[in-house]
Amino acid sequence: MSYTRQLLDTQSRAFNVDADVLAAAIDALSDCAQACVADTDADLGEQNVTEMITCIRLCLDCADICATTARVTSRPAGFDAGVSRPLLEACVVICSKCGGECERHVMHPHCRICAEACRRCEQACRRLLDAMR
Amino acid sequence: MSYTRQLLDTQSRAFNVDADVLAAAIDALSDCAQACVADTDADLGEQNVTEMITCIRLCLDCADICATTARVTSRPAGFDAGVSRPLLEACVVICSKCGGECERHVMHPHCRICAEACRRCEQACRRLLDAMR
Amino acid sequence: MSYTRQLLDTQSRAFNVDADVLAAAIDALSDCAQACVADTDADLGEQNVTEMITCIRLCLDCADICATTARVTSRPAGFDAGVSRPLLEACVVICSKCGGECERHVMHPHCRICAEACRRCEQACRRLLDAMR
Amino acid sequence: MSYTRQLLDTQSRAFNVDADVLAAAIDALSDCAQACVADTDADLGEQNVTEMITCIRLCLDCADICATTARVTSRPAGFDAGVSRPLLEACVVICSKCGGECERHVMHPHCRICAEACRRCEQACRRLLDAMR
Repeated sequence: MSYTRQLLDTQSRAFNVDADVLAAAIDALSDCAQACVADTDADLGEQNVTEMITCIRLCLDCADICATTARVTSRPAGFDAGVSRPLLEACVVICSKCGGECERHVMHPHCRICAEACRRCEQACRRLLDAMR
Repeated sequence: MSYTRQLLDTQSRAFNVDADVLAAAIDALSDCAQACVADTDADLGEQNVTEMITCIRLCLDCADICATTARVTSRPAGFDAGVSRPLLEACVVICSKCGGECERHVMHPHCRICAEACRRCEQACRRLLDAMR
Repeated sequence: MSYTRQLLDTQSRAFNVDADVLAAAIDALSDCAQACVADTDADLGEQNVTEMITCIRLCLDCADICATTARVTSRPAGFDAGVSRPLLEACVVICSKCGGECERHVMHPHCRICAEACRRCEQACRRLLDAMR
Repeated sequence: MSYTRQLLDTQSRAFNVDADVLAAAIDALSDCAQACVADTDADLGEQNVTEMITCIRLCLDCADICATTARVTSRPAGFDAGVSRPLLEACVVICSKCGGECERHVMHPHCRICAEACRRCEQACRRLLDAMR
């Protein structure tokens, strides 16, 4: 069990969304941010770097947005749907676009892995948005 | 003139929002993030810290969300309203709440300054959202 | 296997430190940053919050420093010991202090978990520093 | 006067370094982080992007390290030279390298501006390190 889930369990229900869904989203957001940072670096090392520019741009935005959303959702005591909802919506959009672009470059293993991280994150954010309704 | 505006002027209109409005938003977002980080530290040093908990929580979220939105809007070449819009909407909500809470503590000069930074940022984000329409 | 290790394996040895040691450090840094963010939120909810101020301050610094060091070490292609070494040294110091302070509050399960994350991160950073020699 | 200096003045000397030197460093770190983020985006849009790869990699590291160091130094109440010193040393090294690389591309106005931001930040960090002795 990740620290995320353990730490959520120590909070006496400050938030009213399912802890499994929240923990899965936080972990997927952290993993996606990490994958996008690493993928940016790998993209910059490709010989056909001019074909990777869109991928790099999307990875930069995706890394920043997912990292911040992981931080905000990791502080559930002050949970505010008016703030979390648009953040998660931004994550869904950028993960979808970044994942789609990475899938165009699956001949590069780093893009294949990053696409997987983006897809998993998009799904986890959608589930959290659903659970917040 | 800040580096922000100078740097935007070197980009040959990759984006189609007014450069003044965009630069003002980026600078206000950076200033607000900075003010919220400093205000958190000052809040933690107050004798009545139990009364500052809500303020601290809001400042933590506001700092992270504004910092990331400053980064995303500072990379205008891949500008995507589907991503920027919800991010800016999250900024408007958190700046409004954080500014409102800080105004309840204006006896503390650091909260007065942070309230001003939040209000200015909220307004600059609203203007950018309007300009994107 | 985490995305971190998989992604490092796609990079054709841009760096000359052991990939296991590097991947372990990146994962420990990300986990520690995450734990410190969550612990800050939990600390702010404790009844004896005045006794948690030092813990909160250390967690805030530890979260930021570990998150950035995770990002920099996740971009190994431009690996520069002149930059990575002081960053990792800053991590060792803050993780040691933050872990020590959290251990003073192990009656709070969130502090016990955060102490564990800090200790593991301190050790992983020391190992990476050793491997860089 | 920036919010930074105003906010420092509200803290009753929690730290024992000159407030002017500290405020100048925080502002230079924030400006440099901002310039590096914007320069990365502009570099990615250049036709000779393959010649900009080193510049992009350095800007990515410089942006992250300066942003985090700005945050840590903006929380002066828990000021700890054992943490701040290696962070500022990492800033000096990365700003020097990033500034030097940007100077190789001064035909691009965005690199000229970024070089200036890096040089100013390097100097401000050196002054803060001196003031901490």
